[in-house]
Amino acid sequence: MRIVVAVGGNALLKRGEEPTTKNQRANAQVAGKALAPLAAEHELVISHGNGPQVGLLALQAAAYKEAEAYPLDVLGAQTEGMIGYMLEQELGNLLPDEHPLATLLTMVEVSPKDPAFENPTKFIGPVYERAEAEKLAAEKGWTVKQDGKWWRRVVPSPLPRRVFQIRPIRWLLEKGVTVICTGGGGIPTMYDEEGLLRGAEVVIDKDLASALLARQLQADLYIMATDVDGVYLDWGTPDQRRLGDVTYEDLERHDFASGSIGPKVRAACWFVEKTGGRAVIGALEQMSELVTGEAGTNVHPMPDTITKVFGLPVTYRVRP
Amino acid sequence: MRIVVAVGGNALLKRGEEPTTKNQRANAQVAGKALAPLAAEHELVISHGNGPQVGLLALQAAAYKEAEAYPLDVLGAQTEGMIGYMLEQELGNLLPDEHPLATLLTMVEVSPKDPAFENPTKFIGPVYERAEAEKLAAEKGWTVKQDGKWWRRVVPSPLPRRVFQIRPIRWLLEKGVTVICTGGGGIPTMYDEEGLLRGAEVVIDKDLASALLARQLQADLYIMATDVDGVYLDWGTPDQRRLGDVTYEDLERHDFASGSIGPKVRAACWFVEKTGGRAVIGALEQMSELVTGEAGTNVHPMPDTITKVFGLPVTYRVRP
Repeated sequence: MRIVVAVGGNALLKRGEEPTTKNQRANAQVAGKALAPLAAEHELVISHGNGPQVGLLALQAAAYKEAEAYPLDVLGAQTEGMIGYMLEQELGNLLPDEHPLATLLTMVEVSPKDPAFENPTKFIGPVYERAEAEKLAAEKGWTVKQDGKWWRRVVPSPLPRRVFQIRPIRWLLEKGVTVICTGGGGIPTMYDEEGLLRGAEVVIDKDLASALLARQLQADLYIMATDVDGVYLDWGTPDQRRLGDVTYEDLERHDFASGSIGPKVRAACWFVEKTGGRAVIGALEQMSELVTGEAGTNVHPMPDTITKVFGLPVTYRVRP
Repeated sequence: MRIVVAVGGNALLKRGEEPTTKNQRANAQVAGKALAPLAAEHELVISHGNGPQVGLLALQAAAYKEAEAYPLDVLGAQTEGMIGYMLEQELGNLLPDEHPLATLLTMVEVSPKDPAFENPTKFIGPVYERAEAEKLAAEKGWTVKQDGKWWRRVVPSPLPRRVFQIRPIRWLLEKGVTVICTGGGGIPTMYDEEGLLRGAEVVIDKDLASALLARQLQADLYIMATDVDGVYLDWGTPDQRRLGDVTYEDLERHDFASGSIGPKVRAACWFVEKTGGRAVIGALEQMSELVTGEAGTNVHPMPDTITKVFGLPVTYRVRP
């Protein structure tokens, strides 16, 4: 099978955890242990989040007043380097020497006409008092919004439209290389009026970018590995129940706006609708069961039969 | 021809220049303009320096006291990401859309038994007062040395022994991809007692690592593009003269310890001796003449005839 796995940023640096190299390495090692068996058996592409890591780089840059801070595209490229390196090194330590690995820097295109530019929603960087936030907004052309009691910069989160490096990624897969790419949703870029590609001050959703990658690669399976074991209905209530198998049309009827599950559901449905493949959302430590469809929330394409429903009145659809 | 070009770190961020994204992009554009014609015509691999960029990341990290600074391998990976991205983007803007480009993260192996570990020589990071430097040395296990009136951390600069990603690099070249890799001499790594690959707190010379890359790829030509137009004898005196064509044995007889030319000469001689290919050291803006051998200092293998000598009594040797 050709499999794309998107590993959550939180799987690599947990909430509240000190962002030391040691902690990040330990988490990369856990991810490596989950992924190495897949690399040995399948055509495997690994993408990853970068939220906590970009946040730290932005704080470090803000603390050093002698030089201008780097924009989001450059910070994204830095995190693709550092996280890709850690993942590749841990995988390399687990796989036989002859197993080829490659981390490929990945640019992703967004459109300047994306409606997201009219309503920036993604909080990034440090928190400020209102007055300081507004001063920075005037100085740097930022948009700032209230985030709880503080103020922060917000940037748009437009849809990913193209993964530029898709051909090299495909060529490496054909040679048996396990490829790490599209970290943090890819480096955000867009064409300017002169037709030149430039960095974009936006955040691209990692799960949507990885879904696009999986679609462009015609993957059989798209796995979103995170710190929960699936998608729940009525989460946080006594009635909460995990969806086991579901069609994308059924899943789209529900509302999962809260937290990080919303974008994951959207990415899963989009991939399944466009490709007829399977997408699964679940826990990193259940990786082998996510591959076989025995764990996580499995999102299926074609309607076929009603079968395992984990207590839910949904139709289960087998691969065409 | 298969060509490896190493672009100097100073070509990407000049001495004394503000390290803004705008300046770095402008320099990457100049490098892109020099390199794009080669990419169109040859199998091309591009490596680059990272000194000024690593320096800035280290200063930013030191300024932010809330989190531990990243070690040199992680910083190296970050700069491979950011510089590779800028170079790839500028090249992409100059080359036809269908020309494939890829930036590949590259780890390079050093040996823990390298004699360089006994005598660290490479200054890195901020300058300190003596007392503070010695305090930091005790705290973090650093070696510190006097650098002019200040004190700084020094790390070893061991020899590069292996470029791990050589097979993916070769496979991409065979598909016509222009590959950017081994930036900053590659991410420094070494095996620990348990046989696991780990980051190493060292600096690998970029020109030597690129020479190793060129050798492992069996390149026909290895170009070191910098901000001077060649190697000079009696530099800074009224007698100074540029070496035009020289054999590696002749070049090795001279002493070029000062500045950055020493390592370049060493890298050129090593590549030429081991492969029988040609190496050339010269100015980035003379790239097409460096390829044809009409500019720079050309280092040749086999003795053959005495020919163009730019006023110098050296033998010129043609390719076997």
